[in-house]
Amino acid sequence: MANAIRALSMDAIEHAQSGHPGLPLGMADVAATLFGRFIKVDSRAPHWPDRDRFVLSAGHGSMLLYALLHLMGHADMTIEALQRFRKLGSPAAGHPEYGHATGIETTTGPLGQGLATAIGMAMAERIQAARFGEALADHRTWVLASDGDLMEGVSQESIGLAGRLGLGRLIVLFDDNDISIDGKISLVDATDQIARFQASGWHTIRVDGHDPEAISDAIAQAIADPRPSLVACRTVIGYGAPVKQGTPAAHSSPLGTQEVEGVRAHLGWTAGPFEIPTEARVAWDAAAARARAPHAAWQQRLAASAQRAAFEASLAGGRPAGLDAAILAIKQRFAEKMPKLATRKASEAVLELLMPAVPELVTGSADLTSANFTKIEGFGPIAEKNFAGRYVYWGIREHAMAAAMNGMALHGGAIPASGTFLAFSDYCRPALRLAALMGVGAIHVMTHDSIGLGEDGPTHQPVEHLAALRAIPNLLLLRPADPIETAECWQIAMAERERPSVLALCRQEVPALRRHAEAENFSSRGAYEIAAADCEAAATLFASGSEVSIALAAREQLQAAGVPTRVVSVPCFELFFEQGDDYVESVIGTAPVKVAVEAAIRQGWDAIIGRRGGFVGMKGFGASAAPAELYEHFGITPAAVVTTVQAALKK
Amino acid sequence: MANAIRALSMDAIEHAQSGHPGLPLGMADVAATLFGRFIKVDSRAPHWPDRDRFVLSAGHGSMLLYALLHLMGHADMTIEALQRFRKLGSPAAGHPEYGHATGIETTTGPLGQGLATAIGMAMAERIQAARFGEALADHRTWVLASDGDLMEGVSQESIGLAGRLGLGRLIVLFDDNDISIDGKISLVDATDQIARFQASGWHTIRVDGHDPEAISDAIAQAIADPRPSLVACRTVIGYGAPVKQGTPAAHSSPLGTQEVEGVRAHLGWTAGPFEIPTEARVAWDAAAARARAPHAAWQQRLAASAQRAAFEASLAGGRPAGLDAAILAIKQRFAEKMPKLATRKASEAVLELLMPAVPELVTGSADLTSANFTKIEGFGPIAEKNFAGRYVYWGIREHAMAAAMNGMALHGGAIPASGTFLAFSDYCRPALRLAALMGVGAIHVMTHDSIGLGEDGPTHQPVEHLAALRAIPNLLLLRPADPIETAECWQIAMAERERPSVLALCRQEVPALRRHAEAENFSSRGAYEIAAADCEAAATLFASGSEVSIALAAREQLQAAGVPTRVVSVPCFELFFEQGDDYVESVIGTAPVKVAVEAAIRQGWDAIIGRRGGFVGMKGFGASAAPAELYEHFGITPAAVVTTVQAALKK
Repeated sequence: MANAIRALSMDAIEHAQSGHPGLPLGMADVAATLFGRFIKVDSRAPHWPDRDRFVLSAGHGSMLLYALLHLMGHADMTIEALQRFRKLGSPAAGHPEYGHATGIETTTGPLGQGLATAIGMAMAERIQAARFGEALADHRTWVLASDGDLMEGVSQESIGLAGRLGLGRLIVLFDDNDISIDGKISLVDATDQIARFQASGWHTIRVDGHDPEAISDAIAQAIADPRPSLVACRTVIGYGAPVKQGTPAAHSSPLGTQEVEGVRAHLGWTAGPFEIPTEARVAWDAAAARARAPHAAWQQRLAASAQRAAFEASLAGGRPAGLDAAILAIKQRFAEKMPKLATRKASEAVLELLMPAVPELVTGSADLTSANFTKIEGFGPIAEKNFAGRYVYWGIREHAMAAAMNGMALHGGAIPASGTFLAFSDYCRPALRLAALMGVGAIHVMTHDSIGLGEDGPTHQPVEHLAALRAIPNLLLLRPADPIETAECWQIAMAERERPSVLALCRQEVPALRRHAEAENFSSRGAYEIAAADCEAAATLFASGSEVSIALAAREQLQAAGVPTRVVSVPCFELFFEQGDDYVESVIGTAPVKVAVEAAIRQGWDAIIGRRGGFVGMKGFGASAAPAELYEHFGITPAAVVTTVQAALKK
Repeated sequence: MANAIRALSMDAIEHAQSGHPGLPLGMADVAATLFGRFIKVDSRAPHWPDRDRFVLSAGHGSMLLYALLHLMGHADMTIEALQRFRKLGSPAAGHPEYGHATGIETTTGPLGQGLATAIGMAMAERIQAARFGEALADHRTWVLASDGDLMEGVSQESIGLAGRLGLGRLIVLFDDNDISIDGKISLVDATDQIARFQASGWHTIRVDGHDPEAISDAIAQAIADPRPSLVACRTVIGYGAPVKQGTPAAHSSPLGTQEVEGVRAHLGWTAGPFEIPTEARVAWDAAAARARAPHAAWQQRLAASAQRAAFEASLAGGRPAGLDAAILAIKQRFAEKMPKLATRKASEAVLELLMPAVPELVTGSADLTSANFTKIEGFGPIAEKNFAGRYVYWGIREHAMAAAMNGMALHGGAIPASGTFLAFSDYCRPALRLAALMGVGAIHVMTHDSIGLGEDGPTHQPVEHLAALRAIPNLLLLRPADPIETAECWQIAMAERERPSVLALCRQEVPALRRHAEAENFSSRGAYEIAAADCEAAATLFASGSEVSIALAAREQLQAAGVPTRVVSVPCFELFFEQGDDYVESVIGTAPVKVAVEAAIRQGWDAIIGRRGGFVGMKGFGASAAPAELYEHFGITPAAVVTTVQAALKK
């Protein structure tokens, strides 16, 4: 069975003349043992909710996964698909791409993140089990990880988190082949991985990765142990290649005809390219049948379950049922009270209604609970042996948090919403990107979104982060201006189940600008006129977030000075440019003077104000001082906006 | 002595009504022991090259550092400065800011990075010692790290690296207070830090952080051990505060008058706010004298050294002496041969001349040596017990690599140049930002800079990264179009000792576009006309990197069709907009049609082409296929440029 994986992998890589043969050849025995004897999946119903999740964290070894999916009988991973490995439009892309084929549980390639994503899947499994019982949720998460995965820092964040949460159904199969691209691992690392995992409370075991019985025993022990498990599999990279095995030469280039022949001879594999001998096919068919066997009983349990409807609803995706009523209710409350509130506090008020209304919503923070305001009273923490909670204390681990949130969303049953400071979006950016690439609706609450955070200074003050996040395709950067826009931005983020959102929220208080609780979500158009000019506008001011109130104050002064001025609030660039040219042009308008106001760099705003438009914002990094003093110091004030408009009018 | 730290910290934080008292109160005994008995620094000559480096990785505890600098006699850290803690323009900013005061060796605050930066300092010390001997370079690097530092993933990358390199002069003092903002550490982590560091080859020791003699013994043992050392100091956060000590309440808010009085009573501290009793002042003056004592002998050794001139030159900063001749030589070689080369290969050719010409240059790669082409024959690796090398195998650790590069540059004596893929700039972005904030001239060679990398697919294909890096203030994103521009961009990056550079280089071959080895560096103006129109331009094409040749091909077709077209190469936005309006406008020009061509998203280009300009580039993520096929698929071709121009002309 293992040799079928090896043969298919070599054939596809040679055929493509591109790819990474080292891992599929080295880990074939481990993979065949796992899929042949342990894993619970149904290739005929690949979305079965109670399936085990298998994450190839070392995504460059993609052919291992594609070979497995083909051999297990996934209908979309045909021999033809393998023959189009690494070709445009193939389900068998260079790295595993979520959504390209069934059985690809997450996109991997950027190292370390597969492991971190798997943590979130394992958490979601326990969350579902806590809610619906193990009759409906009772599966494992398997990770195949390489040296590279374990060298990236995010791995430590993941190991610490899994150890603390006691994720006993998480089993990491470590391809301990002692080789990376640059050479032997000893060139760059002397870490005893067994000791390292043990230090964080993991069960560990070391095994010969080419001995199926030993692998089998090790996996059985891992399953039996209540802690998360590391199975360190000593393997030979490029196993069987006469010259290249055990060397970096096997890692990331086709082996070449001669080496492939050598492997085939070594394995006694006589079938032609892309041919699977009947014996192997029969064995894999049996494996697939074994893997799917528990599915029928599960379906019966589901059918008999009193919780069936709720269980299915929790996995349905789409717009959460309780969302719109909760949002309208909080908008009404805001409209009645017109509170002057930091948008991070407005967000807390929104969450107070959302948490009971949407039972899948799980909030959290990377050790900034008291700053992000994402923890709502009455909704306790998720902890070891208690996954009925609705809040995750992620620790100071932004990267693992964001990746695990992707895993929770991919698994289903949980809508993850995090918290950190916007400046630390840099720490989790690789996972934000993967969320956008996969189309995962994780929600990131990022507070302290400008110099308005004050004394903590430039390390903590985002300046370029709004632009940098707007740059990520398929990610919504939402920056609400007041309480009602905050509610609207939450509504957008919650309804968007196939795009990640970042809610950029301010620390400092801002006035309530919107006075009515319209049922319509104005923010969902990305930008809209929040204040019209008295007559034909001579100037239009564009602003987002905490600077909208500055623009509105400037408008008052300008109109008093006889300059008809309108103000456009821009909570989301991405949504705005999706509205079509007519809407975009009508909002941008024809006023001769266009000025944007944002406590951040200018990049991106030229798409609205043009390259000759005026800009009131930041030119470089911030500073440590009181918020009001900083706005004054950096010239982001109504007076500065007025001056900018007046100067432009004179030109 | 420790109580003087505590009193000053409390006084400044209460005065500012903002700050983090927990760490200064908790770690005062450790800091007083280190500075009182061990550290080698000279507050009267704070830039003394052979001083120990002290890095407060837990930057939020900044008052500990400022109090130490004041008590040790740094002239710029006066009582008045402490009274302006967290005020605009104060040397005592919210977090320690490099350059704001002497003795602040690096900017800290974003957790984990201080530790990683210190790794680079410790490496640079050994590099200097290998080159000039321990008579001139013989100092230690001290890190004060918190739970948060050790939870961030970058800490593991740092621990692994330091362990492998055997950085015995690196000593980490861990503030093991068991508290973070959200509560007890056990809430989020169960890691045995001692076991974790041991697993990576560190010497470790646990000590009562409030027992000066025990601390002293532990530090002495750490000094004696040849391995890097972790001294885990068990402390009480907010030590002495009657109610708040040992709780998160002491972490990040002023203690309040009552608690401050309680601490003072507990310590028996009767001096007024910001007053240092004579007894304490005398003790600290003695500490400062002890710490600076070795300086005089070192000066004598330097004066007597045959290597004095080379040593001083290695630390001088500024434009490296051998730079310009080497660049001109390689430009001439390129002009003679007009090679069709990937810019990553052109970069290798540049490095072949730069490495011998600039002895401070240290290159490296995060496990992509064979892809980045940063390792030059004849210049061996830096390794344990051999720091005479000129190449760092960083392992799969982009974040620690970039942070340690900052440390190398801050330390002096080394100009660090890394290698990774451009897509993985996300993994090290927090350290790129700190480099820009501090003004550190680290050079990042980032290859595989677009869909042109081909089959590895969207996880590895940068799309938004050019924009996202251009967004970081004070960072130069350089994207050369051909071999000669590659040499010019290297010249810019090497000459820029106070700004970080990212060299975005392509994997695929590009034609040589520039034919002459001009002594002038055209790229240094950020953008310049690389091809004029036959007569008054009807269209201007702007492009960077591998797309400049596409723009030039389109120009040929357009001119043949009677559309006079000029082409502007834009290797660096940041430098371009620094040239002043006259130059910028003359380069942008007045052609009615402006089209930009870049295999990336549009964001940022509107500043050149205006919001109605044409753009030929990417709208979303890439795909896995052969490079040429991808350019065709995403419509980034000369034909697409021609079509875009023709359509605009008809409007």
